[in-house]
Amino acid sequence: MAKRFEDALGDLPRLKRLIQASEFDLVVAASPENVLYTSDVFISTQVDIRDRLALVVWDGVREPVFILCRVEEGFAREEGWITDIRAYKEFVTSPIDMLAEVIDELGASRGHVGLELDYLPAIYYERLRALLPNARFGRAEPVFDRARVIKTPRERDRLAEGFRGTERALKEAFLATRPGDTERDMCFRLADGILRHGAESVAFTHINGGPNTGFPHKDPSDYRVKRGDILKADAGGRYGRYYSNVGRTAKLGPLNDEDRSWWSRLREIHHELIDMVRPGNTGRQLFERATALHERHGIPFPYAHNGHGLGLLVHERPLISPHEDMAFEPGMMSTIETRVRWVGKCGYHMEDLLEVTEGSPVLRSDYFDNEEILVVDA
Amino acid sequence: MAKRFEDALGDLPRLKRLIQASEFDLVVAASPENVLYTSDVFISTQVDIRDRLALVVWDGVREPVFILCRVEEGFAREEGWITDIRAYKEFVTSPIDMLAEVIDELGASRGHVGLELDYLPAIYYERLRALLPNARFGRAEPVFDRARVIKTPRERDRLAEGFRGTERALKEAFLATRPGDTERDMCFRLADGILRHGAESVAFTHINGGPNTGFPHKDPSDYRVKRGDILKADAGGRYGRYYSNVGRTAKLGPLNDEDRSWWSRLREIHHELIDMVRPGNTGRQLFERATALHERHGIPFPYAHNGHGLGLLVHERPLISPHEDMAFEPGMMSTIETRVRWVGKCGYHMEDLLEVTEGSPVLRSDYFDNEEILVVDA
Repeated sequence: MAKRFEDALGDLPRLKRLIQASEFDLVVAASPENVLYTSDVFISTQVDIRDRLALVVWDGVREPVFILCRVEEGFAREEGWITDIRAYKEFVTSPIDMLAEVIDELGASRGHVGLELDYLPAIYYERLRALLPNARFGRAEPVFDRARVIKTPRERDRLAEGFRGTERALKEAFLATRPGDTERDMCFRLADGILRHGAESVAFTHINGGPNTGFPHKDPSDYRVKRGDILKADAGGRYGRYYSNVGRTAKLGPLNDEDRSWWSRLREIHHELIDMVRPGNTGRQLFERATALHERHGIPFPYAHNGHGLGLLVHERPLISPHEDMAFEPGMMSTIETRVRWVGKCGYHMEDLLEVTEGSPVLRSDYFDNEEILVVDA
Repeated sequence: MAKRFEDALGDLPRLKRLIQASEFDLVVAASPENVLYTSDVFISTQVDIRDRLALVVWDGVREPVFILCRVEEGFAREEGWITDIRAYKEFVTSPIDMLAEVIDELGASRGHVGLELDYLPAIYYERLRALLPNARFGRAEPVFDRARVIKTPRERDRLAEGFRGTERALKEAFLATRPGDTERDMCFRLADGILRHGAESVAFTHINGGPNTGFPHKDPSDYRVKRGDILKADAGGRYGRYYSNVGRTAKLGPLNDEDRSWWSRLREIHHELIDMVRPGNTGRQLFERATALHERHGIPFPYAHNGHGLGLLVHERPLISPHEDMAFEPGMMSTIETRVRWVGKCGYHMEDLLEVTEGSPVLRSDYFDNEEILVVDA
């Protein structure tokens, strides 16, 4: 039984208004995240089998049309709220040919159509232009982005629950680590914990020790951790479709002065940046401030960003990066990540989730406190 | 320390020959699977953060050039064999602008360039054409496909190990199921087992009971299984980068005549199709035979395919589908999947891995025998 429009997880009335207010006659969702946001249906094979396109066509006025592979039709009818489903038989009917027909049927074959041109593969775009030579095409990404950047209370709670689940998994995985364990042992416990604490799937589990902490995303290896090693993790799962992305650092054995010195400087930067997650500030401003703070503390800062929105994707706007001019607004969720790395030697990392409110930012990742580096097996 | 060309997992000498023999002056790998195949480096953020492009440019004669995000450079130097790495700073330098420069540097700015047009997003293709107005572009997919369809012995063993790990996980998850368990309980045990038996990550865990077995890929729900329910799973993980994809069916309680009747007919079809996985036969021929066999046995066959190659992707060529004219050759690996489903009511499923040899096909998924439906808690 299809659910109702109002029961969708994302803010569909907002998306509807944005489509109406856009320059487009209609927009086409094509990426897994925008198809999910628009339809409330997650077509997992759309991710694993890339040419099995799923598309939602919406003019923001009438009912949307959902184009998908026939094998997923029953599922989409049960999970989603869209009733006008056009199912294609894979390898027989082309989803792009079907899309051209739907655009024509909706009266936009000479109109302005918004596409996700940063997702839709070139070959399909070429075909669509050939089929609809009189249509004009533009980028629909800003429409979807503007809808998704503001999270509903349900979306915010889901993100916070995901961070909490991943923080628990990380804390348990660190505390269970003993000298002689491999990175793969740590990774297994971490992935296990992510699932145990509520995720439907593990997204990434970069957990490393000793010299491997000097890389941002190194796969867990057979390296055996030893006393005195820093342990570092950047991990996430999908919890009710929403990503978590937590960074934490621990030490196998007691901290030394060097650990304390780096960490206290990183924490100072971290707190200053968190305090800037307020309405009106932009990612560009935070990034510039981060650049200055790292310089003042003598910490290298070669990164392209130091935090990001997240939701149905692990990196969403607004990014905390030099070109981000979208200002924070209440209801946005952002990570702040502060770190230092020396390739192949050592690294420290922290990444937290903040909710933008009318007033002070609210820390939504407070289960695994990281004011100090977690000491394991001291 | 970079590894050597010869130590890469894929068959690089074969890819090199295919590039030389192609109509292209050079080809550009852009998808995660072809970048991995070509470089031996798996950039996980390329998947999670789609616009963080990684590209390998190769003319099949000189050394390839690897374009990637600076944050991954250290990792790529350690893991891969390509030494000419051009790292871009995200949000500052565009990887596509860098690609245009490399193509020009390699003397192909007026040449014929092979791109993965079914992967590369439209916006990047438009940009590249604007930057290189005198180049001609074509689809490089056939070059990569032809290389990847034949698996090296190491790739074949890795696939078989992956299937074995997933079969163990499935068998254990089924056998641990008791009346009153939810699908989520079953899913958790399954995901846990996939990791415990050697996967670095869980890819998909469609495990369902009772009426939900009537869907192909339904997410595990809070449905509580009861005695008399069919349990059905289609699951996979990534084992050393290579996908597994196993289908199995069990019953919570004793089998009845209806179960035996459907299953024995499905098994008969399954065996006949497996026997056709021999050099010279095509996916089209197998699909046509499957259509006839299902009709003879009175089993609906509304599917678009009934098996597929797999490797770095879960669906690779050759597909067993009505348009596949690529003939089997020794060294190929293919699944055969045989199933019946009544939406929202019930379904049975089996999916196995076959190796194509000079002679008879070899079953490489023989840990969890499914000649009979597995009976749980009889």
